[in-house]
Amino acid sequence: MKALYLDNGEALVRQVPKPEPRPGEALIKVLAAGVCSTDLELVRGYMDYRGVLGHEFVGVVHECANDYLRGKRVVGEINCVCHECRYCKLEMPHHCERRTVLGILGRDGAFAEYLTLPEENLHVVPDTLDDDVAVFTEPVAAAFRILEQIDITARDSVVVLGDGKLGQLIAQVLAMRAPNLVCVGRQAWKLALLQARGIRTARADEPLESGASIVVEATGSEAGFARALELLRPEGTLVLKTTIAGASLLPMALPVINEIKIIGSRCGPFRPALEALAMGSVYVEPMVTETYPLAEAAHALQRAASKDTMKVLLRM
Amino acid sequence: MKALYLDNGEALVRQVPKPEPRPGEALIKVLAAGVCSTDLELVRGYMDYRGVLGHEFVGVVHECANDYLRGKRVVGEINCVCHECRYCKLEMPHHCERRTVLGILGRDGAFAEYLTLPEENLHVVPDTLDDDVAVFTEPVAAAFRILEQIDITARDSVVVLGDGKLGQLIAQVLAMRAPNLVCVGRQAWKLALLQARGIRTARADEPLESGASIVVEATGSEAGFARALELLRPEGTLVLKTTIAGASLLPMALPVINEIKIIGSRCGPFRPALEALAMGSVYVEPMVTETYPLAEAAHALQRAASKDTMKVLLRM
Repeated sequence: MKALYLDNGEALVRQVPKPEPRPGEALIKVLAAGVCSTDLELVRGYMDYRGVLGHEFVGVVHECANDYLRGKRVVGEINCVCHECRYCKLEMPHHCERRTVLGILGRDGAFAEYLTLPEENLHVVPDTLDDDVAVFTEPVAAAFRILEQIDITARDSVVVLGDGKLGQLIAQVLAMRAPNLVCVGRQAWKLALLQARGIRTARADEPLESGASIVVEATGSEAGFARALELLRPEGTLVLKTTIAGASLLPMALPVINEIKIIGSRCGPFRPALEALAMGSVYVEPMVTETYPLAEAAHALQRAASKDTMKVLLRM
Repeated sequence: MKALYLDNGEALVRQVPKPEPRPGEALIKVLAAGVCSTDLELVRGYMDYRGVLGHEFVGVVHECANDYLRGKRVVGEINCVCHECRYCKLEMPHHCERRTVLGILGRDGAFAEYLTLPEENLHVVPDTLDDDVAVFTEPVAAAFRILEQIDITARDSVVVLGDGKLGQLIAQVLAMRAPNLVCVGRQAWKLALLQARGIRTARADEPLESGASIVVEATGSEAGFARALELLRPEGTLVLKTTIAGASLLPMALPVINEIKIIGSRCGPFRPALEALAMGSVYVEPMVTETYPLAEAAHALQRAASKDTMKVLLRM
């Protein structure tokens, strides 16, 4: 089958063997997939990954032992876990010591005609949800992860740093809880999408009042961390969503003096994400800026790195 | 009066005017004071402080409007606050926007014959407590701050990085809650003090099992942060106690992938600290390695920077 394969820092479409589902796994024919900034970081060398890229997808179950799932349109959680290690037993399966992660760690991903995932990872997609919307389930779930990790109430003042693919989703999800929210970005057309949703925005070069109780760093850049510390009030919470290769030079005295809480945040729950997409409380259609066939996946990745695009999709 | 005065990176004993208490403040005759690593960082340029150094002390109230306090032996909280700014109103007085901090920020400190503090900052010291013990109240309170910020239970596995002045106190305070605790340090004689208290220790060069649920960074060095991340389990908590001048190069992807919680921790509650010292549940006598008169305060500071010392005291 055709797939976008990453090897030695180069991602090229090529023929690879169709994956074979193991016991408990389903073979899924991919319908559409979304390019995430993590895919771009993987090409830059983050995680030393080699294999088929892609972890945001919607597909149809092609082969599987479970009669109910066969033929259903599904999305899938990306962490494949052992249920036996110490972290699985501590009810943190996403942190399984022996996990594989779709298109990120030890498991071929979704920029392909087919992929395999454990049946337990799959969620059936409501018929009302278009493929181009369903494909957002994974990143919307990542935004919902924040609500599992910290309390956010109407009294909080929230700043989301970053108007990109993930920042947009985080701003929409958190705005449901915190009316006092502002999303900070660099590009007028991206901020306009949020304004159309009734979300307050600010340009990154505008002065912004400090004293936020919660700041979410989703800029994908190193500068976001220092900016977040400036904006937070003492005892405020900084949620880190950016995963980038390399290390950052950070002023460590300020978080101690101000007793800041910093929390890393990764994969989240699919159910509330699917619900929010189905209800339209998270609205993603205008975020899709370009769509390519799988054969042009390498070009799609390049386009996704451009400032003119937001979500770039592949249709298989 | 005589005082150890920091100016332009140089700390020298010299004559300075005796401080005048403002309304609501007490004039305190200092009996003894302790040298803290923060004093050494202030000399290195952290905080750009100029004035009398010192914030750990015990003294006698010499002048004050409150009849009850006059003549009493007291210790004092170091943050002097306005009660009116937004952070005071949010019940975070330690983070008052207009605060002065004894010997650290805008207020002359305790390495002097006299100091002033608001009456509300003072706590009367039980008669049973020696001066050399009472002087530890402030750093013991800083250790108790951790218990205000995070839940620690008998099921936690706790690592304290650092066997120095603060690490010793933190290990003793947290061990009351978490029997599964190990303190990691570099010097056998310091670790022996903890072993004598029944606290498990490890040398920094020993391999240590990873998977701690809580790590407290109290090494006073930049290397502690990376080591802490290695030892923590996913979704674990890293408490930062070290305040050092400058910035650190940190790998930021790991805290995100492992969803680590990092929390800065500063000043803490005096009441439980005084109680623990009075009950002997925190035992500090063997930590006092050298004592000097105020006239030799500059030398005392130099000695406090040496690896052969732990708590260096001044007696006025």
